[in-house]
Amino acid sequence: MKVDGQPFRTIWSADDGWAVEIIDQTKLPFAFVTVRMESLEDAGRAIHDMEVRGAPLIGATAAYGMALAMHGDPSDENLKAAAKALIQTRPTAVNLSWAVAEMIMLLDPLSPNARPEAAYKRAAEICDEDVEICSAIGDHGKPLIEAAWKKRRQQGANRVSVLTHCNAGWLATVDWGTALAPIYKAHDAGIPVHVWVDETRPRNQGASLTAWELGQHGVPATVIVDNAGGHLMQQGEVDLCITGTDRTTAGGDVCNKIGTYLKALAADDNKVPFYVALPRPTIDWTIESGADIPIEERGSEEVVCITGTTDSGNLETVTITPEGAKAANPAFDITPARLVTGLITERGVAEASKEGLAKLYPEHAK
Amino acid sequence: MKVDGQPFRTIWSADDGWAVEIIDQTKLPFAFVTVRMESLEDAGRAIHDMEVRGAPLIGATAAYGMALAMHGDPSDENLKAAAKALIQTRPTAVNLSWAVAEMIMLLDPLSPNARPEAAYKRAAEICDEDVEICSAIGDHGKPLIEAAWKKRRQQGANRVSVLTHCNAGWLATVDWGTALAPIYKAHDAGIPVHVWVDETRPRNQGASLTAWELGQHGVPATVIVDNAGGHLMQQGEVDLCITGTDRTTAGGDVCNKIGTYLKALAADDNKVPFYVALPRPTIDWTIESGADIPIEERGSEEVVCITGTTDSGNLETVTITPEGAKAANPAFDITPARLVTGLITERGVAEASKEGLAKLYPEHAK
Repeated sequence: MKVDGQPFRTIWSADDGWAVEIIDQTKLPFAFVTVRMESLEDAGRAIHDMEVRGAPLIGATAAYGMALAMHGDPSDENLKAAAKALIQTRPTAVNLSWAVAEMIMLLDPLSPNARPEAAYKRAAEICDEDVEICSAIGDHGKPLIEAAWKKRRQQGANRVSVLTHCNAGWLATVDWGTALAPIYKAHDAGIPVHVWVDETRPRNQGASLTAWELGQHGVPATVIVDNAGGHLMQQGEVDLCITGTDRTTAGGDVCNKIGTYLKALAADDNKVPFYVALPRPTIDWTIESGADIPIEERGSEEVVCITGTTDSGNLETVTITPEGAKAANPAFDITPARLVTGLITERGVAEASKEGLAKLYPEHAK
Repeated sequence: MKVDGQPFRTIWSADDGWAVEIIDQTKLPFAFVTVRMESLEDAGRAIHDMEVRGAPLIGATAAYGMALAMHGDPSDENLKAAAKALIQTRPTAVNLSWAVAEMIMLLDPLSPNARPEAAYKRAAEICDEDVEICSAIGDHGKPLIEAAWKKRRQQGANRVSVLTHCNAGWLATVDWGTALAPIYKAHDAGIPVHVWVDETRPRNQGASLTAWELGQHGVPATVIVDNAGGHLMQQGEVDLCITGTDRTTAGGDVCNKIGTYLKALAADDNKVPFYVALPRPTIDWTIESGADIPIEERGSEEVVCITGTTDSGNLETVTITPEGAKAANPAFDITPARLVTGLITERGVAEASKEGLAKLYPEHAK
């Protein structure tokens, strides 16, 4: 999507054809800095230090990391060492190990001198596949916004409003994003879509990343505290909700950033449609109930400290609680399928149920 | 309640018998500073600059402000001038104009030289009445926590947990508070009560004031982001919710700090009792539906900026959104009576309905 009027992906080949460039997302939303990666170590550091984040983008970076490793030394030893090093950067990231396995399967049978070219080609394909998937999610979600806009326009309104939580935008993928893809598609098609952006405490990915990427692409957006969404729905100010998901069960329960469940409850109470956008790999076919998903408990410093810029433009972290205050920090919650109007996937919109998902993905249905 | 082991009210007579002292709440939770008020101007400034906040405490401070004015100059002119000056400090505060009117009615018929003593006496009474009301709310709410604890204990738990939103504690009143009064009473009676403290964005009154006052009194408390409460209820970690209210309708709809509605929805969805604590003056007998309460929209800087302490101990305000980001800031929301288990008042616990309130307050029932 666009940054300052210019189209960008989150990862791309440098002009010299072998180095790879990314956006340093740790600097957002306060500075837009691109980083040139020239080695396996550069790619590993980018993943580990969260300069890149979001499952699809981590996978794409790992694939290019393997390509950079082969560019430096395409030997069997280095192939194994590179795979091992990359997997250790963020051990729990599923897309990372998937991408590394993909590259190993492709490169291992090849002669060393054939590896670099094949690696770059496959890494580029992995990126293009992700863009295709996200674009398809956008295409399937766009008509939902379009229909809501038609209804709104008949009522004399001049915009249609979507509420989103956290960041499931292009910054988390290679391009388009998941939850934001339908919004970008609608905006690009001339639909006057406006976005209510939940700030998404404690890490504020909404107030920082979502607000930044929507603003850069020119989509009208308003940041709100996480407390405000229910009131806005009571006031008829929200036409639909679209969020992303970290994992969706075969039964349609949705695990997503903490607070998603509260918005789904409010949407249900106010008859506002609540959609979740997801690519197929985030569906966990092995479990049916969200109750079986373990919820990560993160450090309390994310709750008690907040980082932002001071008047003089410096980044500063402040503590907002009294000395000695305890805090708890569950990172995700489960939105039961009964509160989800539909799942927007690259194959179409599914009912959030075992049957609905089985219909779209018959090859996975038991 | 206690600060560092020592009992405090939020406002009290100085040892010399004429000056009045308060806690400068703008410095909390980062510093505990008391302020000596010697004049009408001091009291007006304390109210205007929000060194004192919370409807009951503003009323008490205004009453003492009239007493300080009479101590300085008990003339008819000064009586009128003092009343006018105080009412202008925060024009929308109902308790303020009520307290000033109370003092005028008492003092106007008296001879100037009788006014100072009468004024101090009435100001002290107003404070004592508030303490009595809040204490009675605590007495009526305590059995709810006690009953939840008995159930919990039978299940082998070692604590009972109450979730609260914003600050409806002793800092907002003269002592005890409203929502926190039952918690203090339960704690003081030896019940192992633990409090989940919603940080309460955007102004963070939970993370700052509620966490501070509970911590000072020794009540175990854990700060959570506003997003987390629903998940904790799903996990069975919340035994009941108690919040305060800014205005409750004759029909039992509750207007309170933005986000209260979302917690009430989650409580309802998880069969967690949801109580609202309130003194009689916050009931608005003139309206039945919460939809008739106008919701204040506050400045966006409260959303985009956050104040806290840096590592070096300085207070600093940081901006958390990208440059140019827009924000909206509705300050309150309406929790419909159907989601409220009961209203804890100084006369007992009422059902949140026209009938329930009429039973407790027959003199107001139409």
